[in-house]
Amino acid sequence: MRAAIALLLTVGAALGADDWRDQGVIYLNHTPHAALHPVPVHAVELGPGFWHGRREANVERSIPTMLELLEAHGVVDNFRNTAAHNGKPHQGPLYTDSDLYKWIEAAAWSLQSHDNAALRKQIDDLTAIIAGAQEPSGYLDTYWSGERASRRFTEMYRSHELYCLGHLLQAGIAYYRSTGNRALLETGAKYADFLAADFGPGKQPLLTGHPELEMALVELYRTTGEKKYLDLAGYLLSGVETGRLHLRPSQTDYMFSGVPFTSRTAFVGHAVRAMYASSGATDYYAETGDAAYRRTLDTLWDDLTMRKMYITGGVGARAQGEAFGAAYELPNDQAYGESCAAIGNMMWNFRLLQVTGEAKYADVLERALYNGINSGMSLDGTLYCYRNPLASSGEQIRNPWYDTTCCPPNIERVLSSLPGYFYSTSRDGVSVHLYHNGTLTWHLEDGTGLRIAQRTEYPWKGDVTLAIDPAKADRFTLRLRVPAWSHAASLEVNGAAEPAPKPGAYAAIAREWKPGDRVTLHLAMDAAPMAANPRVESDYAKVAVERGPLIYCLEAPDQAAAVADLAVTSLAQPFQPVDRPDLLEGIVMLTHAGEAYEPPLADTPLYLPWAEAERRAAKPVELKFIPYYAWANRGSHAMEVWVPLGEAARSLRR
Amino acid sequence: MRAAIALLLTVGAALGADDWRDQGVIYLNHTPHAALHPVPVHAVELGPGFWHGRREANVERSIPTMLELLEAHGVVDNFRNTAAHNGKPHQGPLYTDSDLYKWIEAAAWSLQSHDNAALRKQIDDLTAIIAGAQEPSGYLDTYWSGERASRRFTEMYRSHELYCLGHLLQAGIAYYRSTGNRALLETGAKYADFLAADFGPGKQPLLTGHPELEMALVELYRTTGEKKYLDLAGYLLSGVETGRLHLRPSQTDYMFSGVPFTSRTAFVGHAVRAMYASSGATDYYAETGDAAYRRTLDTLWDDLTMRKMYITGGVGARAQGEAFGAAYELPNDQAYGESCAAIGNMMWNFRLLQVTGEAKYADVLERALYNGINSGMSLDGTLYCYRNPLASSGEQIRNPWYDTTCCPPNIERVLSSLPGYFYSTSRDGVSVHLYHNGTLTWHLEDGTGLRIAQRTEYPWKGDVTLAIDPAKADRFTLRLRVPAWSHAASLEVNGAAEPAPKPGAYAAIAREWKPGDRVTLHLAMDAAPMAANPRVESDYAKVAVERGPLIYCLEAPDQAAAVADLAVTSLAQPFQPVDRPDLLEGIVMLTHAGEAYEPPLADTPLYLPWAEAERRAAKPVELKFIPYYAWANRGSHAMEVWVPLGEAARSLRR
Repeated sequence: MRAAIALLLTVGAALGADDWRDQGVIYLNHTPHAALHPVPVHAVELGPGFWHGRREANVERSIPTMLELLEAHGVVDNFRNTAAHNGKPHQGPLYTDSDLYKWIEAAAWSLQSHDNAALRKQIDDLTAIIAGAQEPSGYLDTYWSGERASRRFTEMYRSHELYCLGHLLQAGIAYYRSTGNRALLETGAKYADFLAADFGPGKQPLLTGHPELEMALVELYRTTGEKKYLDLAGYLLSGVETGRLHLRPSQTDYMFSGVPFTSRTAFVGHAVRAMYASSGATDYYAETGDAAYRRTLDTLWDDLTMRKMYITGGVGARAQGEAFGAAYELPNDQAYGESCAAIGNMMWNFRLLQVTGEAKYADVLERALYNGINSGMSLDGTLYCYRNPLASSGEQIRNPWYDTTCCPPNIERVLSSLPGYFYSTSRDGVSVHLYHNGTLTWHLEDGTGLRIAQRTEYPWKGDVTLAIDPAKADRFTLRLRVPAWSHAASLEVNGAAEPAPKPGAYAAIAREWKPGDRVTLHLAMDAAPMAANPRVESDYAKVAVERGPLIYCLEAPDQAAAVADLAVTSLAQPFQPVDRPDLLEGIVMLTHAGEAYEPPLADTPLYLPWAEAERRAAKPVELKFIPYYAWANRGSHAMEVWVPLGEAARSLRR
Repeated sequence: MRAAIALLLTVGAALGADDWRDQGVIYLNHTPHAALHPVPVHAVELGPGFWHGRREANVERSIPTMLELLEAHGVVDNFRNTAAHNGKPHQGPLYTDSDLYKWIEAAAWSLQSHDNAALRKQIDDLTAIIAGAQEPSGYLDTYWSGERASRRFTEMYRSHELYCLGHLLQAGIAYYRSTGNRALLETGAKYADFLAADFGPGKQPLLTGHPELEMALVELYRTTGEKKYLDLAGYLLSGVETGRLHLRPSQTDYMFSGVPFTSRTAFVGHAVRAMYASSGATDYYAETGDAAYRRTLDTLWDDLTMRKMYITGGVGARAQGEAFGAAYELPNDQAYGESCAAIGNMMWNFRLLQVTGEAKYADVLERALYNGINSGMSLDGTLYCYRNPLASSGEQIRNPWYDTTCCPPNIERVLSSLPGYFYSTSRDGVSVHLYHNGTLTWHLEDGTGLRIAQRTEYPWKGDVTLAIDPAKADRFTLRLRVPAWSHAASLEVNGAAEPAPKPGAYAAIAREWKPGDRVTLHLAMDAAPMAANPRVESDYAKVAVERGPLIYCLEAPDQAAAVADLAVTSLAQPFQPVDRPDLLEGIVMLTHAGEAYEPPLADTPLYLPWAEAERRAAKPVELKFIPYYAWANRGSHAMEVWVPLGEAARSLRR
């Protein structure tokens, strides 16, 4: 067992050449301000269940077809042409390099679950092609080459030069952590070295017009131990170049960069940039412990979760600027909810979770993962959402390709690295963040080998059995996340009841664990009708249905009337779960009593006196809810997450 | 009495030099497909009452200060510099010429109510300055002069060249109709002649990137009798140049121009452009009777009033592109509702009203005038709204100047021409569209002099007495508009009851009228709680209060708790009117029982199970509603038109 022979990790230990097998999605074993340390991706095998089909589709169809599409759209040729100095024009938008890097990252992580010599070969070939386009200085960007080379670092508010490097580093790190091959990592590090040498205070000014490089640099520091990368990340987050770069407030708002990160008090601007910047700032805090960062991160997290996050974990209300809206501005039909922004939300909360060990971050992570991210890829793995609205009148939302194809490989890297999000170790034990059939094969931080096998039908059912098998009897704390959505939970160890655990926290069981111990967690998995804060203009007197980690919706193919005419008639009766293995690759559908306006609302006036409006007629219908992630897999249809409470249901106290 | 000596008007009569005194805001006396013919502005004197203070502020402060601001921002200097060929750069955005023209139009109309030798002199001086910038060809645009002259008519999708000409023509026509002075009119006509000569099918292509010129050209045709102007308008509306100008669908959508107007089936794109294009198309229909235009206008009007108009008569949901949203996309806090778009809505419905004589168009006109337009200027006449949202968290909304200052002079021209919107004649009589203290001094189309004196406290009270004084006993039809909002109305002639008139129609009284006849109209003026179609995501289970033509709102200074925390607790009790002559230059306030969430909603979670949400606590408060137009006159405060129905009020049937 590899885990059993791993070296005892000590904080501050020198980084050795063999460490790559120990490094997870982020590597925190030597990070001073992290309560938890993620396990490597390969340490977790995910078995049959909810994510199995998604992850199979990812490696069998999504990843292979995306490389074909990147080739077909000239994204790889951009590197070949730059290497050949043949003067052929760059194809696609200015950030296409990053799409290939993100694809490599996705492919690289997948090797830890599905090793694949052909895929390794593809990555090695691409690594050579990419390195061929790198200049002796280290600079590497196919768009800002040839005639555009003279404009490098002069348009950083839009240039994506540093954004592309960030993804190159993440790809190189992922491939290194999956194979030990440092070639791509070194290509990226060479570019980072060039920046560290020539840019910064007293040298040339630098700006992440699209934040991303910050977290990549911190991860490069974690991977190499070279502090200059951490310092460069700190410089980028410091926002000291507003003046030298003549940045306007509209630019620094949009970029969520260019002013001190620690001066932020609310989310504004481009949602993906803001999430990536916050992820980078969390990484920087974890290494430095700078209290100003922690205060800012807390303030921003409250702003997001109290005022600006969709119930799906999606973020970014506005199409204009792909941006955050004002507080409580969360339109449904017009929601932007870019897949990348939900992924950024997950990445940020994963980092906050590791830093603090607090379950509230895992709750947001899970919400984004199962809903706002998961909706972004079709069940067959070949069609992607860029926007993830919470209501639709049926326009096409899934496409195989976008010229700005940031989202598809981003979803692919989430799915291929997903095992790395399930467990963390800490000095005193191990934490379980997510539930799914599968097995952890790793070790405690005292070096004792540990195997945890989960058996569950999560998220369809709320029972999870965990076989806890340390290599030898050992005293440690097992922390099991009890999701906030679980209004009741119970816990047994070897058949004996533990005190009822508190939802929205980790249930900590400190004891001597022996091989063969069994823990059973029961999470109440009733469908819950949810209300939004009445300040959310778009959701007032409406209900969203949540069951376990899944948000539900009404989609046209299942309904007896137009989705826009439907209402819920009572919240007194529970939503009824119906197993539908035949539908959408297997779901639990929820049914509930409802009504449909008749005549359809589209035929009625825009404004009416209430005395007339309350006489609108409706016929009873059965409402059939499907999980939100599964919508738009049967063609393009009307859909709605927030369903109006009909006349009869509006007052709940009767 | 000038009216009594006016010549009998006959359809198709040659246009004479003295006709200017007969011409209203639009001049339809010779228009074949217009049921009604507006009276001139000077024929209506508006006395004390609702509009009096607004119109006094307009002539005493708004118009004078706006010219000072235009001078201070170089708008007039642009003409001086162009005339001098001194190479000084154009100041302000590319459409500043139109701002001066619109100001002249506003000033010109004001002369018919408030003649003013100094103002005439200012307009004459400006006319000379403008004419000085005109080229011998007739071309006149200070932005596209000097170095930019070579790019004329090459960027018509954005150039505003024809937009500026449209406003020049409207200004010239207004000054002509107010004074008989044709100088400015002829300057504009010279530019139009240049276009008519060199542009069109088989000649150079032409495009109104911002529609406006269409209605100005039809009005120029009506004023001069020269058919080439009507034909040029028809050519612009025909949209035949999509190919020659390589227009993309995103452009023709945004411009609401460039494809055949008659191919439109829904409103899209820039709201002001769409309203102006529709106004021009209505003018064109009125002259040609082309049935395809009528069908399109009907379809578009239904689209607007069934799916895309705010209850204030404002239009344009989105800041991005200042554009229409999708069907039912009517956010409140984020509403754009540009003042110019509401004015375009009024202009369009005024035209449709004259064409058809149907009251539904007057209802929309009045809704836009009293609310979505009227909110656009502060009570003191010196601060303007560009956006007119229906909810606000208190950001500053009124400013004295905008670099794009289209709205302020637009509101000024509405107020100064307002008397011209009150009455129309038709072959068989006279129609009264709007109510206000004041006197019509004009004549019937058979030449009989007619004086109508209104006495009313409209819109604060619903009683209107009309003294009908024909110069001699004469049989004709008096049509009194009974607004759709008046759920009950009654009518008396010389104290004798007439059959109850139908709201949303004109009550037609055909009889022999004698000097001294008196008509009394009683309109029920109860505050009505209004509901939006449940498909409007932002207004569900909320109430907007309408009293007469006025929409009401809650503004922070009047409330006992934060506006965002307020809800209405019952619709069973009426809203109570309270005379407040002391407040906001005199209003009727409405009070009603309400509640305020406690703790404030801002301190509570974004999402909660309904079972917890319904236990939110609230304290009883009295809600105090003010008319929407009067908000933001006491500083910048939170405001809300659509107020949630609180827990107790959500089911109305109890």
